[in-house]
Amino acid sequence: MQIVLLSGGSGKRLWPLSNGIRSKQFLKVLRAPSGELESMVQRVYRQIREAGINAQVTVATSANQKDSIISQLDDKVDIVTEPERRDTFPAIALCVTYLNKVKHIDPDETIIVMPCDVFADSSYFDKISQMAKEVESNKSDLVLMGIVPTYPSSKFGYIMPNRLNPGKIDGFMEKPTLELAKELIQNGAVWNGGVFGFKLGYLIDKITKYFNAQTFDEFIHRYVELPKISFDYEIVEKTSNLSGVYYKGRWKDLGTWNALSEELSSCKIGNVIQSECLGTTTINELSIPILCQGTNNLIVAASPDGILVADKSKSEDIKDGVNAINSRPMYEERRWGSYKVIDNVEFKDGFCALTKQLTLNLGCSISYQRHSYRDEVWTFIDGSGEIVIDEKRSLVKRGDVIIISRGTLHALRAVTSLTFIEVQRGENLVEEDIERFEYNWG
Amino acid sequence: MQIVLLSGGSGKRLWPLSNGIRSKQFLKVLRAPSGELESMVQRVYRQIREAGINAQVTVATSANQKDSIISQLDDKVDIVTEPERRDTFPAIALCVTYLNKVKHIDPDETIIVMPCDVFADSSYFDKISQMAKEVESNKSDLVLMGIVPTYPSSKFGYIMPNRLNPGKIDGFMEKPTLELAKELIQNGAVWNGGVFGFKLGYLIDKITKYFNAQTFDEFIHRYVELPKISFDYEIVEKTSNLSGVYYKGRWKDLGTWNALSEELSSCKIGNVIQSECLGTTTINELSIPILCQGTNNLIVAASPDGILVADKSKSEDIKDGVNAINSRPMYEERRWGSYKVIDNVEFKDGFCALTKQLTLNLGCSISYQRHSYRDEVWTFIDGSGEIVIDEKRSLVKRGDVIIISRGTLHALRAVTSLTFIEVQRGENLVEEDIERFEYNWG
Repeated sequence: MQIVLLSGGSGKRLWPLSNGIRSKQFLKVLRAPSGELESMVQRVYRQIREAGINAQVTVATSANQKDSIISQLDDKVDIVTEPERRDTFPAIALCVTYLNKVKHIDPDETIIVMPCDVFADSSYFDKISQMAKEVESNKSDLVLMGIVPTYPSSKFGYIMPNRLNPGKIDGFMEKPTLELAKELIQNGAVWNGGVFGFKLGYLIDKITKYFNAQTFDEFIHRYVELPKISFDYEIVEKTSNLSGVYYKGRWKDLGTWNALSEELSSCKIGNVIQSECLGTTTINELSIPILCQGTNNLIVAASPDGILVADKSKSEDIKDGVNAINSRPMYEERRWGSYKVIDNVEFKDGFCALTKQLTLNLGCSISYQRHSYRDEVWTFIDGSGEIVIDEKRSLVKRGDVIIISRGTLHALRAVTSLTFIEVQRGENLVEEDIERFEYNWG
Repeated sequence: MQIVLLSGGSGKRLWPLSNGIRSKQFLKVLRAPSGELESMVQRVYRQIREAGINAQVTVATSANQKDSIISQLDDKVDIVTEPERRDTFPAIALCVTYLNKVKHIDPDETIIVMPCDVFADSSYFDKISQMAKEVESNKSDLVLMGIVPTYPSSKFGYIMPNRLNPGKIDGFMEKPTLELAKELIQNGAVWNGGVFGFKLGYLIDKITKYFNAQTFDEFIHRYVELPKISFDYEIVEKTSNLSGVYYKGRWKDLGTWNALSEELSSCKIGNVIQSECLGTTTINELSIPILCQGTNNLIVAASPDGILVADKSKSEDIKDGVNAINSRPMYEERRWGSYKVIDNVEFKDGFCALTKQLTLNLGCSISYQRHSYRDEVWTFIDGSGEIVIDEKRSLVKRGDVIIISRGTLHALRAVTSLTFIEVQRGENLVEEDIERFEYNWG
């Protein structure tokens, strides 16, 4: 059995904690049983393991989320990166081709595709096991998960089970009107949970409709030829031999501040004081304090990207406001560690200075690189490591200062977790001003 | 005629814009007729001049506000700094002694003492001129300003004018109950505006009750002998020959967020987006954006010291919350310029790193100094200047990096306005770790 986790989304609805790079599934705001904070993707991975599911997990994602996944799930998962953003059918096809061509998974093996950001009880994961058994029984080509609805909603897709044999599925309805949703539910319809179970060979066959790639590389090369279409439209609705497994329990999309705030580990996360507040949720990723005084029903969230103060009932409407904010991401989690922008100034003549605090995780390294338009100063404030400047290698530790002029080749490796302040200066300070080279640390 | 402006207060009520060093009168949140933002003290100084009052202005203040006054009023005013905090009688006595002993002002000269943070119309300043004329007429020893009340308040002091001759004053009442305030107002009482007019010689005489200093230095030396008592109790209530001048118009203490928000230049100051908000005031001194979505009747204020989100009706209750926040000031305006802390991190072993962005104003200098417990790195990002490192003098400009180890003597002077990033590192990072020396820039 193989599990494919779909990790997508750009995540402006949870601004400023999420941004173009940090999507909602990576926010560490939930409380794990250990007491530590965990993200949605970490929670789902933990729940899979706690349910006793021994499947290898592969995450299908886009290039800009790859570092976050490595950082949060380490090497416990395989990662398949889309060459470009298309839709769920191409993304799942890519992943299945990877399992087939690179991991040499047998066509008879069971694949379960599921979202990486579902917020559900442990029994949800028992249903995943039940889906796998259903696939293995060879009674149907595709197994879906139906979620027993708790209210009529026009935001979900609906599955209509067969009245005489609920294990079989009669049809689908995408986002009905509220009236129709009520009627559907009265007639036994359930929400479509976006979980798909099938044999690897079944999907490989379907993909050949477009082309028959001999290697994974060839598939990637021809990825652009696949239609931008969802797995539901391309596969589910065209499969006649379907069956369903039904889950009744907590099932939420924590994709809005209102929904997320109900499941947070606390109504105060970070350096926060609440005084005479009611129903106020405050999340602070900055080091400076937030004081909420006498507020009712607010979401207050602060990160290096910005500060949101929203009435909870209006927190789904922030999209336009967020779109009006035109700035680079100020916080990023990367495979090697993380950085936050702590100062960003542009002078009248266009000259810019950008100051970051960076942490390079133990054993990780920053690639051998050079910049054409900026000078950098690194002041090491914690840890120790090795630095390479134009081929010359030396040790660095807390207290050291390294000046890196534009054009100078440099690489860095953390022996222990390294924290440093970087001051960038130049006319054009963009992340893209970087040329990477090979360096053999030996 | 001499004007003495009293500048005091520690200002936690307007946190996070005010802190132990930056009091409310220095916040640049009001709109000047020129369109520029101005502070309360700048507004009062401008209004004095616009009213055609040609008096020399002397500001009586404490040591920690001196730099802010120099920064905001340049060399347009004299500044008299209290050797220690006592009360308004000693502070005014100090200032009057300075005028007498240092500036050699004639005992017959008229002195008007007034608060530096009053928010009033231009006609208020016409009344100041009228008070001066009243003092010059020699009809009374002390002239006060009464403010015609607009509502009964238990927060102010009241002046009771004589019924037959309203120019004369019968008595005073400090902070009466609301009931008594109503009755007082029905009987013609007015608020005590805290403005005092008298001949310099009159107060000099009164001071000799305590001691007779021959020089200003001697007065400073013996300042501690003066009682901690207000000018009202020590002088006003003991003077029988009083008269009053009455002002009717806008008169406010902008000392709370609720009061200040009504007079701000805009409901949005700084990098702020408001979407579907009602009655919300947002002031942002940070460079990252604030988005307010669907909020009602809030104060949102952010500075390098912290972030406040308060219901306007509860904004007077922030004191306890602010007192619970135990951190150093993160923003200071100094005579030489200003700095803000942009990053502040303490590692598990107690080692600290503090990163600041500093601006040294054109022509200003940082004194020749050394630190015992911290190393510094300065990265210059704008402007040019001269630096002295252990007696060696050289030029610095945008792009230069200077490493200053603990124990190294250093001074800096701005030829053009200089901006630089400072990274401090050490076990004990406090502003007090500084030894100052003489340096002759020549």
